[in-house]
Amino acid sequence: MCRVFSGAFDQAGRKLMIVLVFNCGSSSIKYQLFDMPSGRQLAGGGVSRIGEAESESSQKGERGEIRLLAPVKDHEQGLASIKAMLTDPDKGPIKTMSDIEACGHRVVHGGETFTGSVLIDDQVEAGIEAYADLAPLHNPPNLAGIREAKKMLPGVPQIACFDTAFHQTLPQTAYLYALPMAMYEQYKIRRYGFHGTSHRYVARRAAELMQRGKYEVSLITCHLGNGCSLAAVKNGKSVDTSMGLTPLQGLVMGTRSGDIDPAIVFYLHGKGYSAAQLDKLLNKESGLLGVSGLTNDEGDLEKAAVAGNERAQLALDIFAYRVRQYIGAYLAVLNGCDAIVMTGGIGERGTEMRQRILENMEDLGIILDADANARMFGKEGPIHAPTSTRKIFVIPTNEEAAIARDTCAIASGATG
Amino acid sequence: MCRVFSGAFDQAGRKLMIVLVFNCGSSSIKYQLFDMPSGRQLAGGGVSRIGEAESESSQKGERGEIRLLAPVKDHEQGLASIKAMLTDPDKGPIKTMSDIEACGHRVVHGGETFTGSVLIDDQVEAGIEAYADLAPLHNPPNLAGIREAKKMLPGVPQIACFDTAFHQTLPQTAYLYALPMAMYEQYKIRRYGFHGTSHRYVARRAAELMQRGKYEVSLITCHLGNGCSLAAVKNGKSVDTSMGLTPLQGLVMGTRSGDIDPAIVFYLHGKGYSAAQLDKLLNKESGLLGVSGLTNDEGDLEKAAVAGNERAQLALDIFAYRVRQYIGAYLAVLNGCDAIVMTGGIGERGTEMRQRILENMEDLGIILDADANARMFGKEGPIHAPTSTRKIFVIPTNEEAAIARDTCAIASGATG
Repeated sequence: MCRVFSGAFDQAGRKLMIVLVFNCGSSSIKYQLFDMPSGRQLAGGGVSRIGEAESESSQKGERGEIRLLAPVKDHEQGLASIKAMLTDPDKGPIKTMSDIEACGHRVVHGGETFTGSVLIDDQVEAGIEAYADLAPLHNPPNLAGIREAKKMLPGVPQIACFDTAFHQTLPQTAYLYALPMAMYEQYKIRRYGFHGTSHRYVARRAAELMQRGKYEVSLITCHLGNGCSLAAVKNGKSVDTSMGLTPLQGLVMGTRSGDIDPAIVFYLHGKGYSAAQLDKLLNKESGLLGVSGLTNDEGDLEKAAVAGNERAQLALDIFAYRVRQYIGAYLAVLNGCDAIVMTGGIGERGTEMRQRILENMEDLGIILDADANARMFGKEGPIHAPTSTRKIFVIPTNEEAAIARDTCAIASGATG
Repeated sequence: MCRVFSGAFDQAGRKLMIVLVFNCGSSSIKYQLFDMPSGRQLAGGGVSRIGEAESESSQKGERGEIRLLAPVKDHEQGLASIKAMLTDPDKGPIKTMSDIEACGHRVVHGGETFTGSVLIDDQVEAGIEAYADLAPLHNPPNLAGIREAKKMLPGVPQIACFDTAFHQTLPQTAYLYALPMAMYEQYKIRRYGFHGTSHRYVARRAAELMQRGKYEVSLITCHLGNGCSLAAVKNGKSVDTSMGLTPLQGLVMGTRSGDIDPAIVFYLHGKGYSAAQLDKLLNKESGLLGVSGLTNDEGDLEKAAVAGNERAQLALDIFAYRVRQYIGAYLAVLNGCDAIVMTGGIGERGTEMRQRILENMEDLGIILDADANARMFGKEGPIHAPTSTRKIFVIPTNEEAAIARDTCAIASGATG
């Protein structure tokens, strides 16, 4: 595992490169190490409960697992712990940090500045900082991770990949809310959308599966996981998506309400709820959890529903109903589509949920193959009937691999 | 005009009846007098600026127009003014108030109690009062009008017709928000929907135009006026609608935002906006007015757009885009539909807007006939191309006539 990759090329003439990918939150850091361009994962791990008394660092790789329980005060100490695991003499995937030739970072909010992944310089850092106001829980720790990675890997190209970037092709009619224009001009309030790296990844893969160019397909991509969003993809570009200014808008999610009448906020405010309580109510106590009163886990709700729990069934039905409506809405936006793609934990493994969402849609050219659907559990493949006008694919997403790919391309000097 | 109708019947054996219909707001009362069952309007008018220094009472009828400027303190005085106009010796449509044999009232919120129009008794009044909390601007003046009408027309049956009633057939999956269930159980927070009398009226008329039974058609009815809402009508029953707990949710309207990311409320609260300011912002300063910065009038925006005003064009495009999305969503809900119905001021007369909404939808079986669309201005008729899978009708709505019909039927002892 300790070969030096610098300057090496594969048989296709592509530069070989070890790429480290970071996803830094406020109290956790996740990472994956890839052998590029093959995309083989050499190791993956994370540090959780940063700043708490008991932090946990762990790593799984081809050479074994590591688990450490020791306080990790901040992102600097977190990265030091990750460095120790990556270069662990027994179980680490690399001998020295200088094996790493490029480093990619997931950044949540790129606002209107970043329309794709970019090599990080001072101006990019300033841009990420400028959007901290719109993503106060995400952009500051993303940036802290970037700064620590620069220190740990001097001279290594650092690349930022934004959750919002893929949706920067939305037209004004889709991204503007019907608010006074000053809300957009003064406060930058508009639809940004998220999960862009995932929507792009599965959109490109769907084009490959259809043996079409990446800009030659119109798709509805459904990312259904803990967070859920749909994207309408026209000729390979995102033209609408269900999340908005924040990830609260759109579909029902594990603990998020998705779309509601905004007047509900005023109504409950009148009943004595504070803004902070309402924010928590809609983001943390609603969705599948709120309706079922049981759990935010779709799989567990399926089991409870089979066992006769009516509220579990209701939560699942509402979840599916909303996805159906957005599929219809985006069919209207796209004037039809070539394929519907299901991804994310629920999209990849929720066979019952996929059926609930897609059954009885034949009038719109959508016909599921029930057997193919039942078989497609966590793996890639078509699940539409031969008579379906629109293809339906399950495509497991891999945001980290997509970030590694962008990172490798930019670090190699190629365009993304 | 002064024949006594009591006990008279038409050639079809239907009871002849003069029916007065009220729509009572907090500072205005509108009314129409109908000759039933023909539905001929004998007179219509209103009192505006009730409680202000200068109130205006006016009436138009077959025998002439009346306009009075005099202070009207409250609903009691408002009804006295209406009585004077209705029985005006020169221009009034009737000689004496005892010619009126039934009185119908538009009531905005019937909650979950009222699934159709009802004869008003003490229990119904209590029910209307109980929902005042959900419609504080509407139910109290509606009820004030009912109580004054009872005094003015002793012994005359008073009938309540609810904006929400037609939508009481929504299934739980459509009417429940993905909030903690306590929000529904404790606060009755759910989707109620409005414009029900209009959606029902045009749905029934569309069935007649298709020579089908009223429960044999699946439709998407688009009420586009000052307020805008869509309904998905399956087998004649409303199964979903775009307005929610309040009339703020859903489509872009004259001054209402319709759907937004609810987190925008929290974001602007953090910028110093109070709940009252935000309520006003979303209900009174948004929509077509907010985006265009010009006016809430769709017709005026069409003219401005033709003259080159880009923000007028943008406002119209966003308005249309949202209607398209809801049409798509309801196509998915209904698994296709027989017809789309356009009504309300914009739906009936907005030829450009109808084209903007419905063009490029052929993949979903919707093909507009551009010539027929251009001709159908404020009148009833089909506007779909012969090749369109789904029919498209323009049907002028008439909520007052629908209320008069319900009122007549209930007062005659028939079912609605």
